[in-house]
Amino acid sequence: MLPLLRPAQWLGSCFRGYHMPVPFPQQRGETSLVLVDEARRFIQDCLMRVGVSPSKVRCISEFLVVADYRGNFGHGLNRLDVYLSDLQRGYAKVDAEPTVISETVATAHVNGNSALGVLVGNFCMDLAVKKAQSAGIGFVVARESHHFGMASWYAFRAAVQGLAGMVMSNSAPTMMAPNSKSATIGPNCLAFCVKGKDYHFVLDMAASMRDIGALEWACINDEYIPHGWAANKGGISTCFPNLALRSSLLFPAGGHKGYCMSAVIDLLCGVLSGAQYATHIPLDQSQPANLGQVFIALDPAFFLPNFMERLDDFCGRIQNSQPAEESNPIRLPGELERMHMNYVEDLRALPYPNTLLTKYKDVAFKLCVKPIELAFERCQSKKSF
Amino acid sequence: MLPLLRPAQWLGSCFRGYHMPVPFPQQRGETSLVLVDEARRFIQDCLMRVGVSPSKVRCISEFLVVADYRGNFGHGLNRLDVYLSDLQRGYAKVDAEPTVISETVATAHVNGNSALGVLVGNFCMDLAVKKAQSAGIGFVVARESHHFGMASWYAFRAAVQGLAGMVMSNSAPTMMAPNSKSATIGPNCLAFCVKGKDYHFVLDMAASMRDIGALEWACINDEYIPHGWAANKGGISTCFPNLALRSSLLFPAGGHKGYCMSAVIDLLCGVLSGAQYATHIPLDQSQPANLGQVFIALDPAFFLPNFMERLDDFCGRIQNSQPAEESNPIRLPGELERMHMNYVEDLRALPYPNTLLTKYKDVAFKLCVKPIELAFERCQSKKSF
Repeated sequence: MLPLLRPAQWLGSCFRGYHMPVPFPQQRGETSLVLVDEARRFIQDCLMRVGVSPSKVRCISEFLVVADYRGNFGHGLNRLDVYLSDLQRGYAKVDAEPTVISETVATAHVNGNSALGVLVGNFCMDLAVKKAQSAGIGFVVARESHHFGMASWYAFRAAVQGLAGMVMSNSAPTMMAPNSKSATIGPNCLAFCVKGKDYHFVLDMAASMRDIGALEWACINDEYIPHGWAANKGGISTCFPNLALRSSLLFPAGGHKGYCMSAVIDLLCGVLSGAQYATHIPLDQSQPANLGQVFIALDPAFFLPNFMERLDDFCGRIQNSQPAEESNPIRLPGELERMHMNYVEDLRALPYPNTLLTKYKDVAFKLCVKPIELAFERCQSKKSF
Repeated sequence: MLPLLRPAQWLGSCFRGYHMPVPFPQQRGETSLVLVDEARRFIQDCLMRVGVSPSKVRCISEFLVVADYRGNFGHGLNRLDVYLSDLQRGYAKVDAEPTVISETVATAHVNGNSALGVLVGNFCMDLAVKKAQSAGIGFVVARESHHFGMASWYAFRAAVQGLAGMVMSNSAPTMMAPNSKSATIGPNCLAFCVKGKDYHFVLDMAASMRDIGALEWACINDEYIPHGWAANKGGISTCFPNLALRSSLLFPAGGHKGYCMSAVIDLLCGVLSGAQYATHIPLDQSQPANLGQVFIALDPAFFLPNFMERLDDFCGRIQNSQPAEESNPIRLPGELERMHMNYVEDLRALPYPNTLLTKYKDVAFKLCVKPIELAFERCQSKKSF
């Protein structure tokens, strides 16, 4: 196996979307290359084995592979085993389709019927876009949904059609209020995407400082975590990721401001949709999560004819902020992902940590599926997307 | 004059809406009591003297007095001199009325025509509520607007009608991106209000750690500010409020997350509306600001019949989070304001700093208006709202 650069900084979903000048990945452990087609083939084989239909399999595999392509490894192949386990236990239903409970010209209330999150998300965002194209705005809330992975996937779905897309989801309660020592709401996520002629603005963030994935990653790497990420069971900030994982108590970003943003997201996604919310969401995956999500599409053409030019000017102005260090320019949300996509294109394959690949050897064995083939000499082959 | 408690912690708009356990105001300087009716009378006299019509005068004075009543002194009487000066210079127009540029069943694009922000805001939120009552959601963007003060005023306007209200506004560029030493966007504000049967959720926050008002307050009180609030001209965090005020460089709350949230607000309020945005907004009040604002109303009745019960349960769960110290319970957004309202009701008058009252002695003299009368012995009289 080729020991390759491992993009550790990108794994935590909290880093997605910020123009934080994270240095390029440093060699911290063993990573192997997998061709994109091979990753897709493996995901499809596994999903088909648990009974997912071929058309859905294509959609889910594309979604997971693109998350890894964008450097958002926490929501890519890494998630497959959880999806497979939820499908096998019936927490996510193989043959379910989302349905509309009620709708107006600009809003819809959708029942996800426990379909996989990506299927609910695609359905809802397409509906929101359709409504926005006729009413200027489309606002869709979904209940009985499943984990929907990379939120910017759905927001970008609106952006490629020239609309602004905004997506939110609630999650299991793992985030503390400041001056608290218990978690009541989750580090709920928010994504916002819009496209100009020259720039893309692709924000995807959680309301916590970092997410559980970043703690897991530090644990795997036997590293300390900085103070202010997570707390031990007593609610005191800890540097030990194993203690932090045992307590699952994350600190909100910006103290009360992050906490309040997360509460607003839960109000819209959970309370308004009829899904679970706050401490009603199970922490231990012992029952279906019944998550709630919000999908908003907004058509700028209803407001301005030259929105794209103004957006490009806005993005240019942010990029031209005077950096504290010249070598460290100010980046737009989504620029890190673009850098990772270039990095993957240079490698011509996806770099996966060996710990992850070892896990999927066992999964392949259990499901009687051909294991993931590593791209030893084949890493020169062309990426297919 | 009675030296009374001065609610220094409430002055910065950054503190509005958080359930931060700020201790009750401590005696740090001279404060005088003014009866609510007297504050209202003074505001009305001043506004009429610069030519504002009686019906608008009533609306503006109510808006400013309620901000002080809620403890949001930065947007109350304190703002009057800026409004008067802008009205006199024509940056805000005395007789202007907002007009609808274009609309759909769920959206509207409004031209504020440089009317005072509160008039634009009331008009837009009422329009959003009307649209939400027929289409489920109302989304209104305004251009050519003026400073609109306390954002939660408008969001609450939707909440009292049983809807959820969300309001945003952009502002002059005084907030730095992390690792930057120049400000490209403002500490744009966001308010979200919704009412249950037992609870109100009233969030009102800026995306910066603290706002310029908090720096001014520290300066007046000859106090240091904590590191992380604002920077000097070199972009380095400073403890000296005078240096911070000279540079006007605020730090975002939660680093990149606060900065990105602020960018999303500016994209919707400024770029989408056709108003000024980012560094286009003048810093020095040498020309009309032409701000952009967004008003969203959402009718929960289109989604759930029992939204209020669920909201009450959600708020109760947050309040029941286990606090780090039993004496310091977790508070909901808006609870501090409620505490301040009780405090004002106990005083039966509004407590204003003497520095502020001295400023308005000069204003009264210039405008030939009766100065503010202090509530020496009359502080037992009943508050009128």
